[in-house]
Amino acid sequence: MRISILGIGNEVIKGKTVNTNASFISKELNKLGFDIKSHLVVKDYASEIKSALTYLYSHSDLVITTGGLGPTVDDLTRESIAEFFNEALVVNEEIVNQIESYFKQSGREMPKTNIKQARYPKLAEVIINKNGTAPGMYFEKNNQTIIMLPGPPRELNPMFLDYVIPKLRMSHEPSTVSKLYRTMGIGESHAEEMLEPLYKKFLNVEIAPYASVGSIDFILTVDKSVVGYENELNKASQEFENIMTDFIIGDQSKFINEHVVDLLKNKGLTLGIAESCTGGLLSSMIVDVPGSSSALLESCITYSNEAKVLRLSVKEETLNVYGAVSKETAEEMSKGITQLLNTDVGLSVTGIAGPTGGTKEKPVGLVYMAITIHGNTDVYKYNFKGSRKKIRTQAALTLLHTLYKKLKEIKL
Amino acid sequence: MRISILGIGNEVIKGKTVNTNASFISKELNKLGFDIKSHLVVKDYASEIKSALTYLYSHSDLVITTGGLGPTVDDLTRESIAEFFNEALVVNEEIVNQIESYFKQSGREMPKTNIKQARYPKLAEVIINKNGTAPGMYFEKNNQTIIMLPGPPRELNPMFLDYVIPKLRMSHEPSTVSKLYRTMGIGESHAEEMLEPLYKKFLNVEIAPYASVGSIDFILTVDKSVVGYENELNKASQEFENIMTDFIIGDQSKFINEHVVDLLKNKGLTLGIAESCTGGLLSSMIVDVPGSSSALLESCITYSNEAKVLRLSVKEETLNVYGAVSKETAEEMSKGITQLLNTDVGLSVTGIAGPTGGTKEKPVGLVYMAITIHGNTDVYKYNFKGSRKKIRTQAALTLLHTLYKKLKEIKL
Repeated sequence: MRISILGIGNEVIKGKTVNTNASFISKELNKLGFDIKSHLVVKDYASEIKSALTYLYSHSDLVITTGGLGPTVDDLTRESIAEFFNEALVVNEEIVNQIESYFKQSGREMPKTNIKQARYPKLAEVIINKNGTAPGMYFEKNNQTIIMLPGPPRELNPMFLDYVIPKLRMSHEPSTVSKLYRTMGIGESHAEEMLEPLYKKFLNVEIAPYASVGSIDFILTVDKSVVGYENELNKASQEFENIMTDFIIGDQSKFINEHVVDLLKNKGLTLGIAESCTGGLLSSMIVDVPGSSSALLESCITYSNEAKVLRLSVKEETLNVYGAVSKETAEEMSKGITQLLNTDVGLSVTGIAGPTGGTKEKPVGLVYMAITIHGNTDVYKYNFKGSRKKIRTQAALTLLHTLYKKLKEIKL
Repeated sequence: MRISILGIGNEVIKGKTVNTNASFISKELNKLGFDIKSHLVVKDYASEIKSALTYLYSHSDLVITTGGLGPTVDDLTRESIAEFFNEALVVNEEIVNQIESYFKQSGREMPKTNIKQARYPKLAEVIINKNGTAPGMYFEKNNQTIIMLPGPPRELNPMFLDYVIPKLRMSHEPSTVSKLYRTMGIGESHAEEMLEPLYKKFLNVEIAPYASVGSIDFILTVDKSVVGYENELNKASQEFENIMTDFIIGDQSKFINEHVVDLLKNKGLTLGIAESCTGGLLSSMIVDVPGSSSALLESCITYSNEAKVLRLSVKEETLNVYGAVSKETAEEMSKGITQLLNTDVGLSVTGIAGPTGGTKEKPVGLVYMAITIHGNTDVYKYNFKGSRKKIRTQAALTLLHTLYKKLKEIKL
């Protein structure tokens, strides 16, 4: 089953809104092994919608439309789709009642214009919208299927997950099986080199890397037309896990900050953080996780040398002799924060985020970080590349990943 | 001039990457008054790329492609475009040299496969890529123009701004004039109400809001076909500025954190920050600005009550009587950080970011923030809505905006 997604509306075309609906729908369908062919966005004009549908059905069996279902005269999606399928629109009284009761819930009366939103082709299946006034629809004719959904993600997402996914799973078997991995601590080209034997050995397995700053997700996929496809996927996954064992942090359901907070809480460990160049980013990643307050007692962003001395008891001599960005300072910062707060774990990071401030000996991107656990401190040195923002993000994520590996080793 | 944008590659189709290239390009072109017709994304297959081009040129004069320019056999964009235009690809020696020198800069040798990236139609204009190995191109034949750009935003964005925009401005007169404003501290529907008289008075002026978390950009646009269009834009802009005077923070060239750091540095003021629910996010926004170290001396992320007492000298009685999320605690935190660090300015923020921890009296989203300047403290109370992340982001941005307004008032 070949699927395309058609966004309708001016906001995306004008660059006001990013087309997150298309990526949300694609990601969910891709996980289930459906084949996405294209994403298209056009403005809300009848002729453009109709020629878009003609183009999309030239390579798709199902088109999912998003947006253009408002009550105003500008919203022409419903009419254009009906014309494309050569169907009349009929007012569905049940839907009129639903829209009316939606308005009542928020203490308003339904404006007459909203009746428009209850007009559907006679044989269309209506998709209920619990979070707005525009219901969706499922309609099929001449082997061309259309699913029409409203634009706002808070309306679209539950309709897609609660109705569209079960509907598609029931009527259309996905054509592939997949397995998902999230990895950290390895670059894309390095990973490709390590995985090359796997590419050659499992010609029927697609191994697709999805790189973000600091992490790479891998999706291993086998088409169900392959004889013994499940066995093939299991064998490839097993070898993938063996090769990438040092880098896999789980599937794609959790980010590294969630793993770290889980481990701290499960092992009953308290945390203190001393940040310099990351300037609060590392702490903010921890605080992003609900309930992190039971682990993170306090963070000190000691951007200046004075703060490092006063707050973290870094020795002035250390700063004078080795500098603020050094192995020695990182070590004293990490020890200093655990002593100041009396925590089990202390983290520190100090570096040169740029764009200025670099020298030949200490270039932009040089970052030292340290981890103290129950009095023992390890220091790590990195040379990151990229913008100020990217260097800081990489530093924070790398430190979280290193802490994750150390915490996993700790016996309860 | 009708423009469409064609994204090529599996990442977007599979939902791993959001198509920010299309919105970036559209926003920039829209500002200049160009007419965007559609966004399309297809996979990296020759037949799909060619039928996509046929469809797009049915309603566009210019197609801008993004992505698919890598050195591997999978990257077929170059070949498919050449076939579509019925042109041969020729190795451009100058480009080979450029790619070689790009590799040399990072101490590597150019793999043979990268020669592929130097193959162009003979009459194509090459667009230099300073941040990667894949140059772009500009090519025109039979009134069909194509601009080919690489996918990674850090490569695409400067190529687009430095080459494509000037090129289009030179060869194609935009059909509109515009003026840009960035506003903060006002919601979209509230702004719409305030601007309603303007909508009615200036029927020829399009006033388009672009909302992000914490800020709204406005673009005022007049078509050049309107008699006296410049005068019309000036009059509308003047009235827009009068209505929105409390909310405008400038044009779209700077974010609020940059404005705040500029003001602190220009007025020679030092800053200390005490964060609770924002957990480092506020400090990180300040540290995002290069050179912020001369203003921000230190931040304390006092997530626990103990930290608030020990570090910021918040009274235990205050915490017991009013709670950690209260006007009184925010005030003592802000005063405490200025006294601890002896800074001119102190900021504090304490609130309930959720998703749990809210009560009827203190619901999720309740945030108190305080600003101390030279000993005088003001406290602000907000009820933010949305996810944990959104509440924290709104809190940090709102505090920066409030500080911005106060700093502007301070005489040197």
